[in-house]
Amino acid sequence: MEHTDTSEHFLYLRIAERLQTQIEKQVLKTGDKLPSVRTLSKEQGVSLTTAFQAYSELEIKGLIEARPKSGYYVRFTPSQFPRLMAKHQHEKPKKVSVESVATLVYQKMRQQGVTKFSLAVPSIDLLPEAKLNKSMIEAIRKHPTSCLEYEDTQGNATLRQQLARHTYSWGGQYTADDIVTTQGCMEALVFCLKAVTQPGDTVAIETPTYFGIFNVLQSLGLKAIEVPVDPATGLDLEYLQKALRTVHIKACLFVTSFNNPTGCDMPPERKKQLVQMLAEKEIPLIEDDIYGEMYFGKARPVPCKAFDTKGLILLCSSMSKSLAPGYRVGWCMPGPFLDKVLHLKLMSTVSSATPTQAAIAHFLETGRYDLHMRNLRKALHTQCLLYTQAIARYFPNDTKVSRPAGGFVLWIEMNEAVDAMELFHEAIEHGVSIAPGHLFSADGRFSHHIRIGFGTTFNDSIDKSLKTLGQLIKKRIQKSPSA
Amino acid sequence: MEHTDTSEHFLYLRIAERLQTQIEKQVLKTGDKLPSVRTLSKEQGVSLTTAFQAYSELEIKGLIEARPKSGYYVRFTPSQFPRLMAKHQHEKPKKVSVESVATLVYQKMRQQGVTKFSLAVPSIDLLPEAKLNKSMIEAIRKHPTSCLEYEDTQGNATLRQQLARHTYSWGGQYTADDIVTTQGCMEALVFCLKAVTQPGDTVAIETPTYFGIFNVLQSLGLKAIEVPVDPATGLDLEYLQKALRTVHIKACLFVTSFNNPTGCDMPPERKKQLVQMLAEKEIPLIEDDIYGEMYFGKARPVPCKAFDTKGLILLCSSMSKSLAPGYRVGWCMPGPFLDKVLHLKLMSTVSSATPTQAAIAHFLETGRYDLHMRNLRKALHTQCLLYTQAIARYFPNDTKVSRPAGGFVLWIEMNEAVDAMELFHEAIEHGVSIAPGHLFSADGRFSHHIRIGFGTTFNDSIDKSLKTLGQLIKKRIQKSPSA
Repeated sequence: MEHTDTSEHFLYLRIAERLQTQIEKQVLKTGDKLPSVRTLSKEQGVSLTTAFQAYSELEIKGLIEARPKSGYYVRFTPSQFPRLMAKHQHEKPKKVSVESVATLVYQKMRQQGVTKFSLAVPSIDLLPEAKLNKSMIEAIRKHPTSCLEYEDTQGNATLRQQLARHTYSWGGQYTADDIVTTQGCMEALVFCLKAVTQPGDTVAIETPTYFGIFNVLQSLGLKAIEVPVDPATGLDLEYLQKALRTVHIKACLFVTSFNNPTGCDMPPERKKQLVQMLAEKEIPLIEDDIYGEMYFGKARPVPCKAFDTKGLILLCSSMSKSLAPGYRVGWCMPGPFLDKVLHLKLMSTVSSATPTQAAIAHFLETGRYDLHMRNLRKALHTQCLLYTQAIARYFPNDTKVSRPAGGFVLWIEMNEAVDAMELFHEAIEHGVSIAPGHLFSADGRFSHHIRIGFGTTFNDSIDKSLKTLGQLIKKRIQKSPSA
Repeated sequence: MEHTDTSEHFLYLRIAERLQTQIEKQVLKTGDKLPSVRTLSKEQGVSLTTAFQAYSELEIKGLIEARPKSGYYVRFTPSQFPRLMAKHQHEKPKKVSVESVATLVYQKMRQQGVTKFSLAVPSIDLLPEAKLNKSMIEAIRKHPTSCLEYEDTQGNATLRQQLARHTYSWGGQYTADDIVTTQGCMEALVFCLKAVTQPGDTVAIETPTYFGIFNVLQSLGLKAIEVPVDPATGLDLEYLQKALRTVHIKACLFVTSFNNPTGCDMPPERKKQLVQMLAEKEIPLIEDDIYGEMYFGKARPVPCKAFDTKGLILLCSSMSKSLAPGYRVGWCMPGPFLDKVLHLKLMSTVSSATPTQAAIAHFLETGRYDLHMRNLRKALHTQCLLYTQAIARYFPNDTKVSRPAGGFVLWIEMNEAVDAMELFHEAIEHGVSIAPGHLFSADGRFSHHIRIGFGTTFNDSIDKSLKTLGQLIKKRIQKSPSA
């Protein structure tokens, strides 16, 4: 019943998706004329309304445009960008720090009126403000002690139950007992790292990767070895295999779905291969799954945790990217390390706040979360395409842009003449904040890269800021000695 | 105007307080007859109603009793207990752990129907449930983004402003910029300890002290040296002075006002002396002020921070004991170590939850907090007296009981024949949970002590549980070989 309903209702979406695939595969190229609404309707055996809706959908995503009295035309083909490649660089484990850059970038960003491309969060208009407020009010009202008492160290029971249920979406069979709630994903990462390492140990991480991960490693006295990520296929498993032979790696910490900044979704068979490779050496993997729910495709990517047979995968996630950054509600599923994690939590922060956990539990329980996520995913996918198109319009032709399969960010490689840090300083003067590539590796290998967050709804001001950025990049290339 | 109003209104309280002092100083002893209401009214030049109110106040606190057709009699003199002394024991810095005992005590406590004397928190009926809910609702509604966005790393600005204002009550002159909010007081302690020590360092702590402090030290790889606390005069400064000469103490962590478990308030001149002593050696003091607001006397005790001239005192506190344990809102005022603390917070949990901070800020802003605290202090003082009296009634005569000047707990020394751990196990079988002295020092020096929390409103069930406990203690003494 539900299936039929969905099919009828989303028929136009299925047609739009097929057309989108053709555009992405360059079967349809920029400038190509599309069949008229009437022709499409006949060809596909659907109503005129459905055919029109399909084109509207593609128009919203900026993939096609309606030209008055002429019809629909393909506007944009993402693969016009040269392919982004992984940056290899052989190295030894090292202490890592990108602190000073991070502090600088995030201080400057606070200035009034700055366009914050440096952020990787959804803007407030994409979040279900009123409905989450309702959940908070209902949660504190129906709670036996209005959320005033200390919460269980393991976390709010209803929330853990809801989160456990939610793992069904990727085939997980977990219960509330398998989950420990935390203060955001960061605290989950800290507990899991502490559970499987000692200060001085080496942890394998991705490169490029989220600079918060460098901070956490640094604060725990851990060394890092950076494993390259290919924007298309994910983690370089051959590189990792070699590193495992030569370096004593105590644990891995990878963002396996929609790595930040590449947005790459590692194919399931490669995830499986990774799990097997680590299982052979009994090396725990801390899997940061914070972006897993923000997929643009049809189904949620399956995390490595799903392939875990030896209890070596400690999955960490949070609601900070999908629902409520300010609520600081995260969790982990540490498998056999659960008692250790619980103990670490008891020893450091005792328990997490009750009202925020109870509110999110209520939001999940009532089905509000599923509805919200459907809207958010759609909005993010559209924004991703609109930002990409603006970049294609304004940035030099040799720019390479990632094609994320989910998440919040675009990873951009510029001409070698452009230093991202210098561009950052100049852009801030023009009211535009970007995240320079220097933030995403401890050895500066991404000095010509920038990360652009597309969490803010695309509008004229965003368009203008991207135009400004493109002009600044072009000017820098023209000025360079080799030009 | 306000002053006059208060004087008129609280005249009966002032009379009750004077009588209470006389009872406590044994000018008035158990069984003494008090002047009649009429006589009191004449003597004090107050109305009959005021005189009657004064006696009612003392009756509520269990200090006097009305005997029908006879008048009022002194019912109880706290000082009938032998004096509790500090336990000295010379020692070297050591790694500390009371973990296994703590886990056992708090697991057993969870059983259904257990009277939880082992807790040191206010029971829910002493907390302003409905009013805090209102503050939460108003806070999220009036917040520009409904508290959904990441909070500033330093903490909610309104909350910090309100907390800074609140330091006026002990003569503090601080601003919002001096405060960093945290996830409860525990996280504040962790950040402050990390800011001033390295793993392997030695930290001076009190003995007896709250076992959570052992957990924190252990998790940070710190060693401890235990400085005895005299239940009457506080920290043994001479002992500390000696220790400072022989041991390399990197920092101190003391609960200077209403130490848990002794409830002792260190006199201001001794606090001043402590600050000077540490200033000479430039040793930072992390001052855990979590109980400072829960005073039974007329004014809030002044923390060591008030005497700080060298920027060596890092004050930590929270709302977990006074307002909302489940909100996990704490803070610290780390003086010149603020940047370090901020940095540590950014590196581990990024920021604290917004809704809980905003709700408490609103609760403070509207003056609801001051009103609540007046009620809470009065209720706790009354409960303290009622619990003490029941203990005097049911426990053996050689029992020594602390006379806390604030806080939530009584510290009880039993006959040497009674082992607190054995008593704990037997009491749990009878549905009564106590905190054995083994929890409050890492070397077992308090094996005949127990801590009784009086956070739960006194009633028949509490009375019965204390009676049971008294009987169990008496039986153990009778059974002992020396009896």
